[in-house]
Amino acid sequence: MSIDDVVPISQGSRFGGPNSVGLVQTQFLTFAQPPGELELECGQKLGPITLAYETCGTLSPQRDNAVLILHALSGDAHVAGYHTPGDRKPGWWDLFIGPGKAIDTTKYFVVCANIIGGCKGSTGPSSVNPATGRPFGLGFPMVTISDMVRTQKVLMDRLDIPRWLSMTGGSMGGFQVLEWVVRYPDRVASAIPIATAARLSAQGIAFNEVGRQAIMADPNWRGGGYYEGDAPRAGLAIARMIGHITYLSDEQMHAKFGRRLRDRAGFGYDFKTEFEVESYLKYQGDSFVRRFDANSYLYITKSMDYFDLAAGRGSLVEVFEGVRAEFLVLSISSDWLFPTYQSKEIVKALKANGIPTTFLELQSPYGHDSFFLPNEQMSAMIAGFLENVQRRVREAAAAEGPEP
Amino acid sequence: MSIDDVVPISQGSRFGGPNSVGLVQTQFLTFAQPPGELELECGQKLGPITLAYETCGTLSPQRDNAVLILHALSGDAHVAGYHTPGDRKPGWWDLFIGPGKAIDTTKYFVVCANIIGGCKGSTGPSSVNPATGRPFGLGFPMVTISDMVRTQKVLMDRLDIPRWLSMTGGSMGGFQVLEWVVRYPDRVASAIPIATAARLSAQGIAFNEVGRQAIMADPNWRGGGYYEGDAPRAGLAIARMIGHITYLSDEQMHAKFGRRLRDRAGFGYDFKTEFEVESYLKYQGDSFVRRFDANSYLYITKSMDYFDLAAGRGSLVEVFEGVRAEFLVLSISSDWLFPTYQSKEIVKALKANGIPTTFLELQSPYGHDSFFLPNEQMSAMIAGFLENVQRRVREAAAAEGPEP
Repeated sequence: MSIDDVVPISQGSRFGGPNSVGLVQTQFLTFAQPPGELELECGQKLGPITLAYETCGTLSPQRDNAVLILHALSGDAHVAGYHTPGDRKPGWWDLFIGPGKAIDTTKYFVVCANIIGGCKGSTGPSSVNPATGRPFGLGFPMVTISDMVRTQKVLMDRLDIPRWLSMTGGSMGGFQVLEWVVRYPDRVASAIPIATAARLSAQGIAFNEVGRQAIMADPNWRGGGYYEGDAPRAGLAIARMIGHITYLSDEQMHAKFGRRLRDRAGFGYDFKTEFEVESYLKYQGDSFVRRFDANSYLYITKSMDYFDLAAGRGSLVEVFEGVRAEFLVLSISSDWLFPTYQSKEIVKALKANGIPTTFLELQSPYGHDSFFLPNEQMSAMIAGFLENVQRRVREAAAAEGPEP
Repeated sequence: MSIDDVVPISQGSRFGGPNSVGLVQTQFLTFAQPPGELELECGQKLGPITLAYETCGTLSPQRDNAVLILHALSGDAHVAGYHTPGDRKPGWWDLFIGPGKAIDTTKYFVVCANIIGGCKGSTGPSSVNPATGRPFGLGFPMVTISDMVRTQKVLMDRLDIPRWLSMTGGSMGGFQVLEWVVRYPDRVASAIPIATAARLSAQGIAFNEVGRQAIMADPNWRGGGYYEGDAPRAGLAIARMIGHITYLSDEQMHAKFGRRLRDRAGFGYDFKTEFEVESYLKYQGDSFVRRFDANSYLYITKSMDYFDLAAGRGSLVEVFEGVRAEFLVLSISSDWLFPTYQSKEIVKALKANGIPTTFLELQSPYGHDSFFLPNEQMSAMIAGFLENVQRRVREAAAAEGPEP
């Protein structure tokens, strides 16, 4: 489900409207120039690295109001607002970011960067490999959630942000939130992981692997070296269709499509698209192919598979020992890809460490992807949480007195 | 999950053991010879039609002890026993069929036929089209659950069975059970639909469609005309992998595989198979390809998509109005492909008609495919139900007195 399928555009913020952040521009940060490449978790080096990012709102003079948004598998840096006045739709989380919204850009400075390994302006497998002058393809090194977070930390330092007031992300965005608070405990005041988990489940790995198999079985994939020919469109569309089913709930699919036929009065008794749900999935697959790189899909899903916050760090309770952020943990009642019990595991381990944690299971029938959809309860929870965190952070700063 | 993955062979019945039905032989019935072809639901004609079937146990002199087993997507006629003394494993439901088992072959005469559209001896897309002398491929007409049942009725008549004492099947086998009791109410004394529904859900259609897309995207598929070349193995394997995930539960995948790696001490940071769950799925996909025809997969999944017992017949309550069978309805607690609520819809509609119905949600963590696994509760329920039905049937026959 993407916003445009479900939300009338009027529910987003029109360009120029009072709730819109208006025009935003993608910016680029390049770092890790050789010989200062970033050593990745896999042991390989990567550099130079470019991060595409966008910001909205204004960084306060005290530099204490920055909120980092972490995107999921198919997201990008364009989180809110419009690139041009003529854009048909705003950034992917515009419903929650803007003046007067959950993450109020009159109060907060919002930052969102495309992950490395992606295909939306940050360095990934479709980028040109400086060593060869041609796209990396499978020559791109494997990147992990931890690697993504380390590049985001470089961006943070370049933006001269001492500490994130908060950070939030759903699904794989939540993986990054969790990695951030553990890896850089002094640099995060609060965190809002949404519809996520401390590790990808076996079922999640299984769905990802089938999607990858579909891409790699497409003869156009050619070992990842397809950039000068046809892309593995059929394989990527199948991978996306599989993923898409997991983002919806059985209940919502029933309500939205049921067993209705599309453009047919009766059964066709052939293998053409005939049920509405087939048509919807096919549309999702086809439109995804136009905007996403198949190799990025391979790399990003693999980074999800590898994610296990506690691996090599002890139990989840031990992992959170040094964490200093306070938490708002949100799960979604109908999410079967990242079920509520997985959020509860996080909450339990946080509370075992005495970390201030609010947990809420959002009642929504729309499955995993609910966090892309309008949800007043979610908006109110995030808005209230951020306000409280900001008040506490400023009170604490005032108590410490002005810096010398 | 197939039986050999989970059940030690010793839990099945060894060849020659006291609980084994021993050797069985596939038999073939051919009918609907032109010009007497069967007119299918899609409007096309099919004939001659061959059904592969097996039987075990002995038909009673009164011909009142026959139990029909209906298989699911990937099943066949070989439901119990062994084809040769050297067979490594018995038929697919051997755990429940044999002397002293749930369906006790010392009491009942068991019949199981491969569905039309299949690839295990019954007429399907890989059969030779008499009109061309070459395999049908996509020239095979679409067959529906109702068509399958109508061919099973021909077999019933040829076997001179006046009424089935009972019939049972899981998943798509349950679709056939439901179609039978509605279509031929006077010919079924009792029915045991397992892990099934009165219609395939939108989510079920969606998973089936993605599997079909994977097959049809395989260049070897060639519009279904691959029989003289390489089969679309990669596509079929992907379809099977998708299906397989839906047959397991999240809980069981976690317990069985978790995030364990296979044959690796640490992450490989490449796209080779490394998690155990990936390896398992790949094995399932690859082994399925060796035993199943890709076109049959297309036709059979499509017959599932089309299944909607009430379509064209009124409400589900109205559909069951003329039904005379009594019911044991079984669902599985961890089944998310055919969740319990779908069985409850059937139960509610049966009870609204005053039809004697026992319902049980089996507590099993193994997901949809639990009905292939050892389950003492399920065995006991089926055994007790069949005994009671047989007693009532015989009492009723005795009360009517000997036929003139």
